[in-house]
Amino acid sequence: MIIEPRVLKGFRDFLPTDEIIRKKLLEKIESSFRSYGFLPIDTPVLEYSEVLLGKAAGETEKQVYRFNDNGGRDVAMRFDLTVPFARFTAEHKAELNFPFKRYHIAKVWRGENTQRGRYREFIQCDFDIVGSNSAASDFEILHIMYNTLKSLAGEEIRIHINHRGLFNSFLLRLGLFDRSVDILRTVDKLPKIGKEETLKLLLEFTAEDKAKEILDFIGISGGYEQTLKAMSAAAGSGPDSERLEIIYRFLLDAGIADFVILDPSITRGLDYYTGIVFESFLNELPGIGSICSGGRYDNLVGLYSKDTMPGVGTSIGIDRLIAGLETLGRLEKVQSYASIAIACVDESSSGIYQALAERLREEGINCEVLLEEDKLTKQFQMAEKKGLRWLIIPDAEKPLAALLTLRDLKKREDHKGLSIEELIKLIVPVK
Amino acid sequence: MIIEPRVLKGFRDFLPTDEIIRKKLLEKIESSFRSYGFLPIDTPVLEYSEVLLGKAAGETEKQVYRFNDNGGRDVAMRFDLTVPFARFTAEHKAELNFPFKRYHIAKVWRGENTQRGRYREFIQCDFDIVGSNSAASDFEILHIMYNTLKSLAGEEIRIHINHRGLFNSFLLRLGLFDRSVDILRTVDKLPKIGKEETLKLLLEFTAEDKAKEILDFIGISGGYEQTLKAMSAAAGSGPDSERLEIIYRFLLDAGIADFVILDPSITRGLDYYTGIVFESFLNELPGIGSICSGGRYDNLVGLYSKDTMPGVGTSIGIDRLIAGLETLGRLEKVQSYASIAIACVDESSSGIYQALAERLREEGINCEVLLEEDKLTKQFQMAEKKGLRWLIIPDAEKPLAALLTLRDLKKREDHKGLSIEELIKLIVPVK
Repeated sequence: MIIEPRVLKGFRDFLPTDEIIRKKLLEKIESSFRSYGFLPIDTPVLEYSEVLLGKAAGETEKQVYRFNDNGGRDVAMRFDLTVPFARFTAEHKAELNFPFKRYHIAKVWRGENTQRGRYREFIQCDFDIVGSNSAASDFEILHIMYNTLKSLAGEEIRIHINHRGLFNSFLLRLGLFDRSVDILRTVDKLPKIGKEETLKLLLEFTAEDKAKEILDFIGISGGYEQTLKAMSAAAGSGPDSERLEIIYRFLLDAGIADFVILDPSITRGLDYYTGIVFESFLNELPGIGSICSGGRYDNLVGLYSKDTMPGVGTSIGIDRLIAGLETLGRLEKVQSYASIAIACVDESSSGIYQALAERLREEGINCEVLLEEDKLTKQFQMAEKKGLRWLIIPDAEKPLAALLTLRDLKKREDHKGLSIEELIKLIVPVK
Repeated sequence: MIIEPRVLKGFRDFLPTDEIIRKKLLEKIESSFRSYGFLPIDTPVLEYSEVLLGKAAGETEKQVYRFNDNGGRDVAMRFDLTVPFARFTAEHKAELNFPFKRYHIAKVWRGENTQRGRYREFIQCDFDIVGSNSAASDFEILHIMYNTLKSLAGEEIRIHINHRGLFNSFLLRLGLFDRSVDILRTVDKLPKIGKEETLKLLLEFTAEDKAKEILDFIGISGGYEQTLKAMSAAAGSGPDSERLEIIYRFLLDAGIADFVILDPSITRGLDYYTGIVFESFLNELPGIGSICSGGRYDNLVGLYSKDTMPGVGTSIGIDRLIAGLETLGRLEKVQSYASIAIACVDESSSGIYQALAERLREEGINCEVLLEEDKLTKQFQMAEKKGLRWLIIPDAEKPLAALLTLRDLKKREDHKGLSIEELIKLIVPVK
């Protein structure tokens, strides 16, 4: 009985070319996080459901992979990296230095509707600073967002920021603070459904004049200072507008103010943010949505500890980013980490071929060894299929002699009569 | 209501210092795989139970995390990387170049008894060549094992090899081929329970003279050639002994024969291997068992395809390796990827501090920025706790002037009056 080889809906295999692309982007992201002194952690994929779902709304719970394990424990697969981080921080508080800067790049699972190109298994790249309320930490997250996205997508990126507190002050002034959740949920839909539909939805909670004021508020635009002035006029000045002012000075001082837009329409919908919030976009593809979002929360560990622990953090959506870069033709597709191989002229020389390849590896050149004796033309074809640039053809009788041929598969040129050391000298500058 | 922050039994958090160690080893492993032109793939954590468990024995099935998802599908978390690779290869055959050399480093889950220091969530590092029956591919796997383990643990490593076919020929000669599974299972216990106990267990399947012959066979030792001669004498010569001969020549030609021991006691118990089998050990800690094991199998994809697809591969046990290196005092503990930070002398200069740090990052120096204004002595303490070597103290009034102090936290020395460029010149050679 043959079992049909297939994966679950919403789950994906990554073939080598796609996996190399994904790894390359993840390595850039990780390298950027490390350059700021952020520390990696890891947590289990499976946790007690009580721990993961304690605070989750019904919508989340429905999407979670939850079951009883063989020991009868009620367990669930993590659906994000924030809840496990909260549990981790509460559990290991005494072992960590605060402010604690951590990153975590790992898979999460949500049994979502897969129709909108969403996946049920995907990678999140989270970075957070916990244990600091400072504007400097809000700003550091922004700085990392800028630098990391630049390393991935170039300078055509923009980060939109807002402050939840300022929006709440504005609603308070309108006497609508008690409807803030509904209103946040509604205005979050603006980019998708347009102004008219949003207005209609807002009328369920408030009168027309106030609904229009809300739309005017979130529609404020212009330069950072001008926008902040208009927002403060509508919402009142205070620590929140001051925080946005300080951040603007930091952005100017660091020379990255041009990449950051103060945008009162950014609210991060239902998320648990309480301070500054961020979203970021590819200028050339704003329609794909935010590729890196986050914000400040006033207490990470509340569910697991009597302490409070404020923090600020962000998550990069690697799938959306890959889709965006693919659309823009900016993904460099590489078929292998090696660009050179040694042909199998005589299988009984395989020990020598590995020794030759090892000389290249010692010089930092990844080198494959072809394993099956075959006609050279077949081996050229195989090497081309594998996306290799070079093929080394050893002499059939004297593989160790200075009789190596280096075939340039791109130019279809041969360099003949080389010793391995001469060959390395030819390769190193172009590898 | 506070929820107790805790992880499931057999599951682990990795705090930064441990996670940095693990990542460093995994990066070395991956870099070694890539240097041979091996390609990465990824497969889902969750698969149809039918796909994952089709071939699994009862023992495996009991250990698997299996459940019905919200759509009523019978699903399971992968318990190894070989079964998903078989499904992957059958499904994507037309898109792959054979012989296909792939690696996959990822977590797997087994609800095992945790008493023996086993974990229920752990990382496997698999590398396989499928689609080739050649001795060259057996040998390439050996070569990678040697090079990878050397990069992790130094030269004090030994790889023990054997051939399943030769052992089977021997049993055939004894008229015990039909009991081979029981006998394999029994002799696999030899290192744990000793010769006498093993003999007792063997007597359940055969007479004393044959049981002693079996123990004599698996006890053959000495140099590779001498051992092979004795094994061939007992089991008969043929393609299997010839394969071991060819591999020995390859090992000599590649200069790594001293690291490989032909050892008839290596059988890999119940595994599905049909040809050469491998185990590897730290010379100084043979008692912890094999840190990298595998072998040749005659058909990877049989469960999912009518084709046959022979292969050879190995898996590195990163947990056991870490435990071994820890015991030997060979784990270099690093607290951070950064060794330098900028002190927070005046929080309102945070934008400038990030700009200064960015200059270092541009030179490839990971640089943290401390985010909370505090007494300098406190910041020295914090930097030391974080394991940093250097702290930059900017001038309170003129942070951009050539008035930077570089504090060497190890030597407790200050270099004063530096510009950022002068400071970089001091750091680069020692970073």
